[in-house]
Amino acid sequence: MPYIAVEEGIPGIRALLVFRPDTAQPLAALANALLHDANSLPAGDRELIAAYVSRLNQCTFCCMSHAAVASCHLGSEALVDAALADPATAGLSSKMQALLALAGRVQQGGRAVTADDIAKARREGATDVEIHDTVLIAAAFCMFNRYVDGLGALTPQDPAAYRDRGAQTAREGYRMSAPPA
Amino acid sequence: MPYIAVEEGIPGIRALLVFRPDTAQPLAALANALLHDANSLPAGDRELIAAYVSRLNQCTFCCMSHAAVASCHLGSEALVDAALADPATAGLSSKMQALLALAGRVQQGGRAVTADDIAKARREGATDVEIHDTVLIAAAFCMFNRYVDGLGALTPQDPAAYRDRGAQTAREGYRMSAPPA
Repeated sequence: MPYIAVEEGIPGIRALLVFRPDTAQPLAALANALLHDANSLPAGDRELIAAYVSRLNQCTFCCMSHAAVASCHLGSEALVDAALADPATAGLSSKMQALLALAGRVQQGGRAVTADDIAKARREGATDVEIHDTVLIAAAFCMFNRYVDGLGALTPQDPAAYRDRGAQTAREGYRMSAPPA
Repeated sequence: MPYIAVEEGIPGIRALLVFRPDTAQPLAALANALLHDANSLPAGDRELIAAYVSRLNQCTFCCMSHAAVASCHLGSEALVDAALADPATAGLSSKMQALLALAGRVQQGGRAVTADDIAKARREGATDVEIHDTVLIAAAFCMFNRYVDGLGALTPQDPAAYRDRGAQTAREGYRMSAPPA
């Protein structure tokens, strides 16, 4: 049960966004810029980074939500499940493996990242913008995960609850309509 | 030295914001909504929460930046230094002590927060919105800190380098001008 009086029955972060529209707008715009807008990193790969960090933070709601979106983009739930369980044996590109390793380092803490982590990603073909975006996606999910679980947000346990929403998000993204003037 | 090719000589997160305007806009809007906009929690208290979490994450740039802004709002560097060193003995209100304890729990992880942490803050007079904002400020600095240190951003060591900027931020906030159309 959520720790604050949010509207009942709305899952996860969505209840928090409804509770506090002033912060919902920039949070949704950030998610959209990082995960949905055009980017040299495919949206499915960016969603996989988000789900992977959420799994490391043991945030069930964010992990299942972004795994569902990643599965839509990548066309395979099995691939996403395998990548989340062990990026090294899931058949991912060596570039994605290096980016997930970098994201995992960011999850530990900003100071845990080393020049060698960055050099490995660059050696596998990651550009500076892709390195930037990977670090910021991982950092942003260290925020979103804490926001959701730190306020005890409602977390459906059935994967089916995440599939339809995931398909919608993969199509439409995260941006909220403009607030009423 | 930053890990990616940002403009030289710009300190901390500001170089990253210049590097990637698409994500800079929502990040600045989020900081402004959380730390600068009108709120029942004074801006100085919110900046102190930001500095406190940054200190726990050992992010020197963010800690010194937000300590400087907090000092301007609260009118005392000594109070901010004492609060960052030990919130229990700095003469803070019992409500602020409970909010800082909650923020420290969020820094550990979303799942580290307990119903008892929330109940303590509420017992000291915190409203649901204040509890929400404290959790989100703490969560957001778990992002900002990782963003800054995860990309090796430039970190001035002299406190004087943070004072002028802190005074400007205390007056003007964080919102960026709209991007060129």
